[in-house]
Amino acid sequence: MAEEASAPRVVALAGGVGGAKLAHGLQAVVGDRLTVVVNTGDDLERHGLLVMPDHDTVMYTLAGLANREWGWGIEGETFAAAEMLARLGEPTWFRLGDRDLAVHIARTARLRSGLGLTEVCLGIQRALGVTATILPMSDDPVRTEVRTDDGWLEFQDYFVGRHQEPAVLEVRFRGAELAAAAPAVEGAIGAAETIVIAPSNPIVSIGPILAIDGIRGALAAARSTGTPIVAVSGIVGGKALKGPADRMLASLGHESSALGVARLLDGVATDFVIDRVDAKYASSIAALDLRVHVTDTVMTDDDARARLAAECLAFASPRSTASP
Amino acid sequence: MAEEASAPRVVALAGGVGGAKLAHGLQAVVGDRLTVVVNTGDDLERHGLLVMPDHDTVMYTLAGLANREWGWGIEGETFAAAEMLARLGEPTWFRLGDRDLAVHIARTARLRSGLGLTEVCLGIQRALGVTATILPMSDDPVRTEVRTDDGWLEFQDYFVGRHQEPAVLEVRFRGAELAAAAPAVEGAIGAAETIVIAPSNPIVSIGPILAIDGIRGALAAARSTGTPIVAVSGIVGGKALKGPADRMLASLGHESSALGVARLLDGVATDFVIDRVDAKYASSIAALDLRVHVTDTVMTDDDARARLAAECLAFASPRSTASP
Repeated sequence: MAEEASAPRVVALAGGVGGAKLAHGLQAVVGDRLTVVVNTGDDLERHGLLVMPDHDTVMYTLAGLANREWGWGIEGETFAAAEMLARLGEPTWFRLGDRDLAVHIARTARLRSGLGLTEVCLGIQRALGVTATILPMSDDPVRTEVRTDDGWLEFQDYFVGRHQEPAVLEVRFRGAELAAAAPAVEGAIGAAETIVIAPSNPIVSIGPILAIDGIRGALAAARSTGTPIVAVSGIVGGKALKGPADRMLASLGHESSALGVARLLDGVATDFVIDRVDAKYASSIAALDLRVHVTDTVMTDDDARARLAAECLAFASPRSTASP
Repeated sequence: MAEEASAPRVVALAGGVGGAKLAHGLQAVVGDRLTVVVNTGDDLERHGLLVMPDHDTVMYTLAGLANREWGWGIEGETFAAAEMLARLGEPTWFRLGDRDLAVHIARTARLRSGLGLTEVCLGIQRALGVTATILPMSDDPVRTEVRTDDGWLEFQDYFVGRHQEPAVLEVRFRGAELAAAAPAVEGAIGAAETIVIAPSNPIVSIGPILAIDGIRGALAAARSTGTPIVAVSGIVGGKALKGPADRMLASLGHESSALGVARLLDGVATDFVIDRVDAKYASSIAALDLRVHVTDTVMTDDDARARLAAECLAFASPRSTASP
């Protein structure tokens, strides 16, 4: 597309649904100039297959296949295989649709054949017609675990299996210390004109990405050379639009507000976007090392996604490397 | 069931559809006293999953799930995953239904967890409500290959991929020399009061089972102690009821008739069942080391399956170990 040739190169860091929506808006604005770096800490093995909830939510959303009503999976999905798996006595709490299962089957077979995770993901994205590039944060396994009163739980056991009910007392990203950034991630961050941190859960969606040394280093390098890093608060009016981020912030001792999120991303981001309902926090956030932008951040439809994406890019402007 | 307590212990050797039908009839007659030993030479890896066409055809048939119209797969099957796999660029010539795929997924996951093939198969059979016991002939991999003008082909490439069109010039069972009979097979044959060789393709369905030393030895031992081994011809009026057995017999230099099948099973079976349309072969078959029985062998419905099964058991009677 002609307009995209001059579109800025954008990298977005994203987790699941909220991240997918903003990534979708960014893809609408900059097309194939967008690279989305997705959290893989939520990944899990089901029935011997590698399931990547955040990667696939972003992929289905960017491919126009996402089920908007559920917030996960594929529009028009069926569950014939899942019913048979249940009949065979397989664990049923993580229910996979037939089309979704096909993605996990193809991915797992290709990984077993010796291909790397990034290469496999890119092949599947292309086959589904995704315009942007979605990169797993690492080809190495990183697994998010949360400590609750029931002890340490794998993330999906907490998130899906226990409906996010237990209070989260501690979070760890197993494997993150040793994990290298996926092959193209550091290069994409280095080449980006704007970096966007999507309104995903700051602790368990953005947290694992930032826990990879190579990515944190690439972000610091980009920031030091003036690349704007625009974060959008996923907490609006004190509540997470989706998921347990608000309760998780509180149980981990953070403030469950846009200000709480801003504090977590201070030092990483340069710019912070909050909703109009949170305008009262603007001065407190500005007192951190962040520029504040106030707008409507709730992405109710495709137009709202594209508008917020365009605003994030407009807010972003090269920042002096000198302190303000 | 009260009547089954006194039913004879029966072992059936079977391949795909024809074998499944007679096994279904035998299950109707002797219930859980039936053990079916199935060919695994047709097994293949698809998308990283172990697919067992003959085992699953017998299993779905005995579970009452088989699609009778197609002759393979599950009644009411859907193909949502297969369509997605095609979209992802996976090979499409061996199309797997959603429910069938669930079986392959569960089986492969359980095998990868370290369980043996027989144990995994029995667990799935029980979950689906199969009354009889279906044993893979071996837990070790055996793969049937056929030589054609296109060279050596894996069996399913010939059978499904090339629609059985190339003439088969030679057949081999890779791995058969080293394969042990599956754990319970020899014991089941030793304990059987009657052994039935189903009207499956004698070369590529029954042939691989007989190529396992342990099974051939167990059959010879059973025969030597007077256990009747009743084979049913899968060639009726010179034609295979299903599949390429007739053309395969001819291209391999055998007679494509009930007599041709009898010659292949002479020395293994004690009794041979032919259709009324093949009564003309009775004296030639009787001249071999086989007792001949003539009846209707085409199993058009459940009653016909049970009737033929009951007749096979009635034909069988302990045979003197002395030569006639």
